[in-house]
Amino acid sequence: MKTFFDCIPCFIRQALDSARLVTEDETVHEQVLRNVLQATSKMDLRDSPPAMGQYIHRLIRKTTGNSDPYREIKDHFNHFALELYPKLKARVESSANPLETALKLAIAGNVIDFGVNNKLEESSVYESIENALVSPVDGNFEGFSDTVSRADNILYLADNAGEIVFDRLLIEQMPLGKITLAVRGFPVINDATMDDARATGITGLVEVIDNGADVPGTILQECNEAFIKRFRNAELIIAKGQGNYETLSEVEKDIFFILKAKCPVIARDLGCRVGSLVLKNSTCAVISE
Amino acid sequence: MKTFFDCIPCFIRQALDSARLVTEDETVHEQVLRNVLQATSKMDLRDSPPAMGQYIHRLIRKTTGNSDPYREIKDHFNHFALELYPKLKARVESSANPLETALKLAIAGNVIDFGVNNKLEESSVYESIENALVSPVDGNFEGFSDTVSRADNILYLADNAGEIVFDRLLIEQMPLGKITLAVRGFPVINDATMDDARATGITGLVEVIDNGADVPGTILQECNEAFIKRFRNAELIIAKGQGNYETLSEVEKDIFFILKAKCPVIARDLGCRVGSLVLKNSTCAVISE
Repeated sequence: MKTFFDCIPCFIRQALDSARLVTEDETVHEQVLRNVLQATSKMDLRDSPPAMGQYIHRLIRKTTGNSDPYREIKDHFNHFALELYPKLKARVESSANPLETALKLAIAGNVIDFGVNNKLEESSVYESIENALVSPVDGNFEGFSDTVSRADNILYLADNAGEIVFDRLLIEQMPLGKITLAVRGFPVINDATMDDARATGITGLVEVIDNGADVPGTILQECNEAFIKRFRNAELIIAKGQGNYETLSEVEKDIFFILKAKCPVIARDLGCRVGSLVLKNSTCAVISE
Repeated sequence: MKTFFDCIPCFIRQALDSARLVTEDETVHEQVLRNVLQATSKMDLRDSPPAMGQYIHRLIRKTTGNSDPYREIKDHFNHFALELYPKLKARVESSANPLETALKLAIAGNVIDFGVNNKLEESSVYESIENALVSPVDGNFEGFSDTVSRADNILYLADNAGEIVFDRLLIEQMPLGKITLAVRGFPVINDATMDDARATGITGLVEVIDNGADVPGTILQECNEAFIKRFRNAELIIAKGQGNYETLSEVEKDIFFILKAKCPVIARDLGCRVGSLVLKNSTCAVISE
């Protein structure tokens, strides 16, 4: 997905919010703000929004000298989600359609996104869970279910820390031996890295790799060779969250995007309403027999 | 008032909104956006927000080749307010305190601000009127009333077209012979100019001058000499709206600011809530006997 004009004021606000979250030093806020204004004034709008996200958060890390400013937030939401996990797991297992319930919960967890909302509280996660369980999934669930059961080699692209525990619920409903989970290569916002995969026990469940990049999405040119090879060879990609949708929506590959539509630009691009639970498959995503 | 960091993303959004209101040409939207991003990246934050407003709207007029892009909107809201005028006038005259009621209505009319909200509809004006009539004014009304009755030479700085009819209700409760009304010198957003003063019949009521500038506020250095002289010699200034507050809040002069606080930055600066009806006098505004 390209960057729309409406993304620009949002980048500026996000950059300011993030700088404030990371430090109280107003000279840093101003430096980040001025640099991001300069960068956006010249940006190539054919680039996807996470390309600017990468720029902004590199800038914040460099300006503050803090290589992982969201570490505490990531730890907090990993612990919080792990505390919820047993009850959510029980809800999945006692439901009429465990795969569908797990899918809804995985989408519910996509609310833990500090790029979109840096004032997120636990109450919003509870709300997102209850809302998801009574909402329809906007997409072809049967196609997803069929494709997952037939694919021999699935690459699941994780999104954020905390959220990754919700992904675990979904992964546990799929054939574990056929799944590889990919996380970001370096810290960016609250996106999940290998540390989060380990902290939430997913490394003991499936193979976990990192993509070598610090993009809040998946820009293939920024990823390491090992990841690109796995991506190319995967029979099916499951891509979680807005950032992965924004960066991969035009890549030719069998991909199921699963996400909560959290902003009007994404919702318009997807043809859904803000807040929708989205399961979108790229044209050729349903693997034939 | 200086420009706060939070004003910057709002400038970008406003510039984009305004460009879209004025033309459907996306190349113009992009050109305006990129230029405003450049300008804000270098702006002196000691300047007040209307300084950037002046820059943005000069740019939009230049890029579109339209010297008065809000002309239709201004005409529409002048007519709309003139239609409301007889009933509002009756409400003022039948009220227990006509000056206070007229003051509330003048503040209610401050909602007609296409800088803050370019999707304003008539229903919001009705809502603002009814809300103002049952809300307290945040400020020293007695001091205002006393000062007005004692001043021999009052300069009333108007804000927007349409709104100027609501100002007329207030002006009619004051000693007409002692009042001069000042409008902007050139079109900027939907701010009132001499055309609007004429169209709404105010030129037949009090002396009307223009300030010679195209700023959505009153930056004295940008005004013509005649206006500056009248400003300096006035015994009392009544300054209407956010733009006049933002540009004059630090000028040493007896000023009563009257406005509706429409954004969180202004509300914080004034120490009130968003939506409050504000009557704020500068320290020495109450004229002694």
